[in-house]
Amino acid sequence: MAYLSLKDETIQELQNIAHRLRIHAITSTQASKSGHPTSCSSIAEIMSVLFFYTMRLNLQSPRDPASDRLILSKGHAAPILYAAWAEVGLFPVENLLNLRRFDSDLEGHPTPRLNFIDVATGSLGQGVAVAAGMAYVGKYFDKSNYRIYVVVGDGESAEGSVWESLHFAAHHKLDNLCIIFDVNRLGQSGPTSLGHQTDIYRQRLEGFGCNVYVINGHDVEDLLEAFHEAAYTKKKPTAIIAKTFKGKHFPNIEDMECWHGRPLGDKAEDVIKHLQDLIVEADGHELTIKNLSIIAPVPNVDITNVKLSTPPDYKIGDAIATRMAYGSALVKLVEYNACVIALDGDSSNSTFSEKLKKAFPNNFIECFTAEQNLVGAAIGAACRDRTIVFASTFAAFFTRAFDQLRMGAISGTNANFAGSHCGVSIGEDGPSQMGLEDIALFRALPGSTVFYPTDAVSCERAVELAANTKGICFIRTSRPNTAVIYDNDETFAVGKAHILKQSSEDQILLIGACVTLLECLRAATGLEKIGMHARVLDPFTIKPLDRESILENGYACYGLILVVEDHYQQGGLGEAVLSALADRRGFIVKHLFIPSVPRSGDAYTLLDRFGISARHIFKAAKEIIETDSTVF
Amino acid sequence: MAYLSLKDETIQELQNIAHRLRIHAITSTQASKSGHPTSCSSIAEIMSVLFFYTMRLNLQSPRDPASDRLILSKGHAAPILYAAWAEVGLFPVENLLNLRRFDSDLEGHPTPRLNFIDVATGSLGQGVAVAAGMAYVGKYFDKSNYRIYVVVGDGESAEGSVWESLHFAAHHKLDNLCIIFDVNRLGQSGPTSLGHQTDIYRQRLEGFGCNVYVINGHDVEDLLEAFHEAAYTKKKPTAIIAKTFKGKHFPNIEDMECWHGRPLGDKAEDVIKHLQDLIVEADGHELTIKNLSIIAPVPNVDITNVKLSTPPDYKIGDAIATRMAYGSALVKLVEYNACVIALDGDSSNSTFSEKLKKAFPNNFIECFTAEQNLVGAAIGAACRDRTIVFASTFAAFFTRAFDQLRMGAISGTNANFAGSHCGVSIGEDGPSQMGLEDIALFRALPGSTVFYPTDAVSCERAVELAANTKGICFIRTSRPNTAVIYDNDETFAVGKAHILKQSSEDQILLIGACVTLLECLRAATGLEKIGMHARVLDPFTIKPLDRESILENGYACYGLILVVEDHYQQGGLGEAVLSALADRRGFIVKHLFIPSVPRSGDAYTLLDRFGISARHIFKAAKEIIETDSTVF
Repeated sequence: MAYLSLKDETIQELQNIAHRLRIHAITSTQASKSGHPTSCSSIAEIMSVLFFYTMRLNLQSPRDPASDRLILSKGHAAPILYAAWAEVGLFPVENLLNLRRFDSDLEGHPTPRLNFIDVATGSLGQGVAVAAGMAYVGKYFDKSNYRIYVVVGDGESAEGSVWESLHFAAHHKLDNLCIIFDVNRLGQSGPTSLGHQTDIYRQRLEGFGCNVYVINGHDVEDLLEAFHEAAYTKKKPTAIIAKTFKGKHFPNIEDMECWHGRPLGDKAEDVIKHLQDLIVEADGHELTIKNLSIIAPVPNVDITNVKLSTPPDYKIGDAIATRMAYGSALVKLVEYNACVIALDGDSSNSTFSEKLKKAFPNNFIECFTAEQNLVGAAIGAACRDRTIVFASTFAAFFTRAFDQLRMGAISGTNANFAGSHCGVSIGEDGPSQMGLEDIALFRALPGSTVFYPTDAVSCERAVELAANTKGICFIRTSRPNTAVIYDNDETFAVGKAHILKQSSEDQILLIGACVTLLECLRAATGLEKIGMHARVLDPFTIKPLDRESILENGYACYGLILVVEDHYQQGGLGEAVLSALADRRGFIVKHLFIPSVPRSGDAYTLLDRFGISARHIFKAAKEIIETDSTVF
Repeated sequence: MAYLSLKDETIQELQNIAHRLRIHAITSTQASKSGHPTSCSSIAEIMSVLFFYTMRLNLQSPRDPASDRLILSKGHAAPILYAAWAEVGLFPVENLLNLRRFDSDLEGHPTPRLNFIDVATGSLGQGVAVAAGMAYVGKYFDKSNYRIYVVVGDGESAEGSVWESLHFAAHHKLDNLCIIFDVNRLGQSGPTSLGHQTDIYRQRLEGFGCNVYVINGHDVEDLLEAFHEAAYTKKKPTAIIAKTFKGKHFPNIEDMECWHGRPLGDKAEDVIKHLQDLIVEADGHELTIKNLSIIAPVPNVDITNVKLSTPPDYKIGDAIATRMAYGSALVKLVEYNACVIALDGDSSNSTFSEKLKKAFPNNFIECFTAEQNLVGAAIGAACRDRTIVFASTFAAFFTRAFDQLRMGAISGTNANFAGSHCGVSIGEDGPSQMGLEDIALFRALPGSTVFYPTDAVSCERAVELAANTKGICFIRTSRPNTAVIYDNDETFAVGKAHILKQSSEDQILLIGACVTLLECLRAATGLEKIGMHARVLDPFTIKPLDRESILENGYACYGLILVVEDHYQQGGLGEAVLSALADRRGFIVKHLFIPSVPRSGDAYTLLDRFGISARHIFKAAKEIIETDSTVF
């Protein structure tokens, strides 16, 4: 359907609104004495056209799953986003003057404290991944026609994550996704590398599989036409390269350096006057935003109270890798509720998410070797509670997406992450493939839950619990086949440890997980032979940690605790235990961990040479018990 | 200079060598029972031509700074890299059978334990950044004509980091850089998204500013010509798109799925026989690798014992942000030794690396908004000890490059990193810009040193010490102007704490850094007014932590310690203190930290509302002292 020009009055009104938005961006950043008015001004027409003509919004329910969505990837332009929502009528424009105040949700960069924000932005280059995840859900799960818009700065297009996501979006033919590049030529500290060379942006974006328009980003009609054409383009995401100017229509500021992230100060008054003069009032003409009624409805979904279709079915002593149980559990979750989906970054045959891929190919999203997009798309797919999301790769490679995970925590995402191949127990592949800082990473995320299941039974239950737990969940899985130690009907809960061995004579509490827990059990057997007694605790979740159980059992063992983990010292299980005991006198905690960069070798050699095998646990426990005869 | 065809015998011999390399890749992975022979086979001709014709190597000193360098970004093809070095004569080919053994340095993925490896690879998509950093040093600092080659897998080209680095390389006109894309069509778990569509690779790479050749990667002469042309191309990096087949010349395996990361097992013998049959012996013809004598020499550099050109020059009580002192110290280091360089990711006006940029523009490298490349290029620039490297951005945004930092630690890099805008004390910009997990990140890197200077004087010394400290150094700087508390002649050392306040009556030890240390001092003054006495300790480095001082002063304060930090709980200063005290009974450690996702607001409001201001420290200290009358 060809684009038909709108009435001149409509175009003028859209232009007027752009200027009003500019004025709000100035006045609100004047009030807060900080913020980015010039970065707002370059997208004023883009926001005006999107909010007052192109997008289909629901003011009664801004997060209506059937409405169009906008991700402001250049989150520092938040003031104009807030202004647009105020101008369409979501809240009084006077509130804009509360920008960046502690008692206001109009934060410096957008966060989902606001009812119209799906995900936090502000760390650059992440918006496209989130938008692509939302678009994937819209096209393939909701099968609705709502559209996803994302505004990206030209400075942030230097972030590789943007290109990961474009690659993903093109591969999956996300024609419901429209990416607007605000090419305003100026970054934070100086000009961008490409300036206004829109031909280079075009070549790159076409190369990455987009339907591309190069337009004047300050021309309302150019924008109207481009958004229209984008909506009728099939099988490709659209990229709109909008040539703009930073501080557009701010006299003596427009297109000048050194105005990034600065309110206009004493120049504000003159600029506002200038903008007011640009507004041409047309009598009686008033825009209304488009109506939701034209949107195809989205299906009802219920993502609560998800269960494994069948309980774990293993035999005690069977050798099953926890990563294998992860794949089995995913399949069982989908059997129970088709809203469960999994993403993987070309490692599904290692993480065993391939079990889901084979059983339910439509519930699996291949993200190729691009972990930033893997995590960002997972957060996007989860952000309107349409799906329960699991994303997997090697535990080590989640370090690649720590920033996305950090932003996910700020966004309050419910996406779940499974990292396989943790620790030196992976063996021959060597340190680049070993997750040795992944617990530190995931523990540091506010509101996160960190599962470290020891066997296949507990791993299946960890997956089930993660599906029902708010916030980021991380499930750490292991490569080697390890013995099943729990009965199939054992119950597991977040923050609930299990005691695997105890007696009234216990002299030390051993704490480990998976491979190191099994080594603790072996060491305990060895200690018994020399008349010493160790209690053994499986924490199941590292965060939250079962503080009560550790205190109780630790006291029962005279305050002597030995923690053993296949992870570096910092931020792992050992320091989690120390934090739990920090306010109590009387404990001695010995910590065995991987003390330096490991190397290739067979798994058991590595456990032993890096000091976390049964032999070392036995020796350390014996030493502590013998040394510490001073019971409180 | 046009390419002239080589003699047929030479070409045949290069082809023969490729087959010999294939055989080594098979036999070594048969011996290790793991590894990636098919990923090796696709680059056999590339390696043969590079090692036996194109590259200028020095077998007496494989890391000779004047020699050409090769980064195998697809590190899982390590066996063929090892085979190439063995075949050129660096070590006996028999050693290849020790692949992946604990007692061999021929690890599963390359690490600098080997004298011919500059940086570890194996986490995909990182090689181009490192190579670009090396090329930058070669072109602009060494001003030599050595060339940098990097072999990238097609699967890993989905990593955004690759595109960050291409963008960087093209912007800086790194014509001494040659990137070979091994387009073998198959990833780990299945086909790549682009398969053999070399036209799309061409469009992308041309769009990113490369001089591009599309060739048959198994054709020796194609390769010779492309490498020749690349060497004569000015002002652009060259990208060679080599169309190849995974498992090339392995009958019934070539170009088939499900052979990633698998030794050939019982098919090995037949395949080796087939390869041997492909080798055509030409009597008496023998290749020699090129001679170093044709390489321009590199300048002598001395990067040891670097000093500030002048000591810190502040007044006690002056309000100076530590980030500002970071910039000043950089300038002073360059004044002393011109080998000091700084990189920044379009944040130099916030991190204050712009001080160096302005004073010594040739010692500054702009990396734009692309933190993965920022860190990777820094590691590359540092890897042959030609420069002392500092890379800066907001502390929060180093999370974007955790994987690169992790690999940097495996590489034993000496690159230094400075993260500004730590904690809630940045104020209004909100949580996306706040470094609240950066200490956890940098502490978890093996061999790292973490500086958290409190004032301008100690920050300048931290920068000086970092320049002279092996391993990764991180300097955490703060946004607000904070009081100078140290005399200009105060001495600082890694792992040495400073006591700022003490008396014989002290009842509790307060530990903080920068903003929280100043709050501790205020709280201590408040406590004095109610007759309570607090000792105050500035750790200066969080890692290593001055355990002796904390033990001694902690005992002197009846084992009562209060740690206050502008960071999340996990992995930060608090847990560092707990780890230091883990083996001692008798301590009570109270920890004040940022307990949840913060928000926008003015800096002091945030410190207070999130519980780390003087008021909270006072209250917590008082409570602990009052509650704990049970002295040991």
